[in-house]
Amino acid sequence: MEAVFDNIRVVLVRPKYGGNIGAVCRAMMNGGLTDLALVAPDPQADWEDARRRAHSAVDVLDRACRVDTLQDALGDCAAAAGTTARPGLYRAHATTPREFAPRALECARANRVALVFGPEDKGLNNRELALCTDLLRIPSSGLYPSLNLSHAVYVCAYEIFMASGSFEPEGEPTGDAAIEQRERMYALWREVMAETGFAEPEKIDHMMMGLRRIFSRGRLSDNDVRILLGLARQTLWACRRRDGKNGA
Amino acid sequence: MEAVFDNIRVVLVRPKYGGNIGAVCRAMMNGGLTDLALVAPDPQADWEDARRRAHSAVDVLDRACRVDTLQDALGDCAAAAGTTARPGLYRAHATTPREFAPRALECARANRVALVFGPEDKGLNNRELALCTDLLRIPSSGLYPSLNLSHAVYVCAYEIFMASGSFEPEGEPTGDAAIEQRERMYALWREVMAETGFAEPEKIDHMMMGLRRIFSRGRLSDNDVRILLGLARQTLWACRRRDGKNGA
Repeated sequence: MEAVFDNIRVVLVRPKYGGNIGAVCRAMMNGGLTDLALVAPDPQADWEDARRRAHSAVDVLDRACRVDTLQDALGDCAAAAGTTARPGLYRAHATTPREFAPRALECARANRVALVFGPEDKGLNNRELALCTDLLRIPSSGLYPSLNLSHAVYVCAYEIFMASGSFEPEGEPTGDAAIEQRERMYALWREVMAETGFAEPEKIDHMMMGLRRIFSRGRLSDNDVRILLGLARQTLWACRRRDGKNGA
Repeated sequence: MEAVFDNIRVVLVRPKYGGNIGAVCRAMMNGGLTDLALVAPDPQADWEDARRRAHSAVDVLDRACRVDTLQDALGDCAAAAGTTARPGLYRAHATTPREFAPRALECARANRVALVFGPEDKGLNNRELALCTDLLRIPSSGLYPSLNLSHAVYVCAYEIFMASGSFEPEGEPTGDAAIEQRERMYALWREVMAETGFAEPEKIDHMMMGLRRIFSRGRLSDNDVRILLGLARQTLWACRRRDGKNGA
């Protein structure tokens, strides 16, 4: 899967702010991407700020290739997805990063694929969008649809990372508890209810239904049941010891 | 749906950098969220930088509520999802923002829900995570798993926005072309192949299969077919006029 990620290039066209370029480097690495091309970055860009914001992704910044035109950055790419926020003529054909992600991965198995982002203030122009094989529109609220540059890069890298299936959740450390184990636990809690006088004998069945409902609302692992069982057992022991003392 | 979004609060615990707080405001609005709580922000935080990075989301910053403890920020919430990057004991129970998003929306129909983020350097501590009803781990590459604060907020807001179904793609401006319309278009391109001498008569069927394959690879809208049909018609007209002239 690494080789596939190596085939995905992020292209920033005329970026203005060094801080954004640095934040893009970090966002790329968060999604497993390392190939960055900078097309005619602003001569005023603050490269110290870029290094600071790149944090541990400063290698991506150092290895970024610099070219004069978007065409130079896309020459060896078989697909290029240009991002656009403005509605309009050809922009109606845009897909979302989530829709594009599986296609990007499929294409990147054998080809280089580019994700293309315009300058912070104006985005990609029509000539630049025409060079792209795909248009991406990032879903966002009507409240404020314009994304920060590094957030736009991040969500594209994130969707590709998610689509790759590379993320392995740690999962529960133990399996789900079996009914037999749960029933032993409930039996002890029923004793606690009786022993502590929490409920009259004729009400205990009803209260136990409540407790079963509460404990059945989510998953219960082996570990969870061991904790609940231990707590009930210890409670019974403490109650009986106290009663023993009082009676002595 | 707006009321649901109004019930989702972003809580930043001991944030250090004003710039990050501002970027969080913008990321929140991109996902339709506006309720921000700041728990004991760093006294050195640069609030001018926060306003600058908030851009048009400066209202979110101005209306943010400030409290001293996480407990104060969560007092009226029925669910609180704490984000964590470090693996460990209870963190193994974490879910992803994509898994949590539908549950957040369901809960936010009648309750307040919080998304909780720790300080940039250390994240939430165990005492703070214990206050949360849910733990979130944001899928990210082993290359560099640690996200910038505003990126972490953004991806949670984005996943909730995506799960809400609020995003309506513009879609194609015209419907897909019908077979009848496609066949008229192919008939004209066949004439072009013959007229221009592009292919020997016995090869034309074979070349037409190639052209059909190319044009069938993606969707073809009414508009697309009109363009291709017009181009073929005009090409035939130009060829025949030239031939007429040459012959005159």
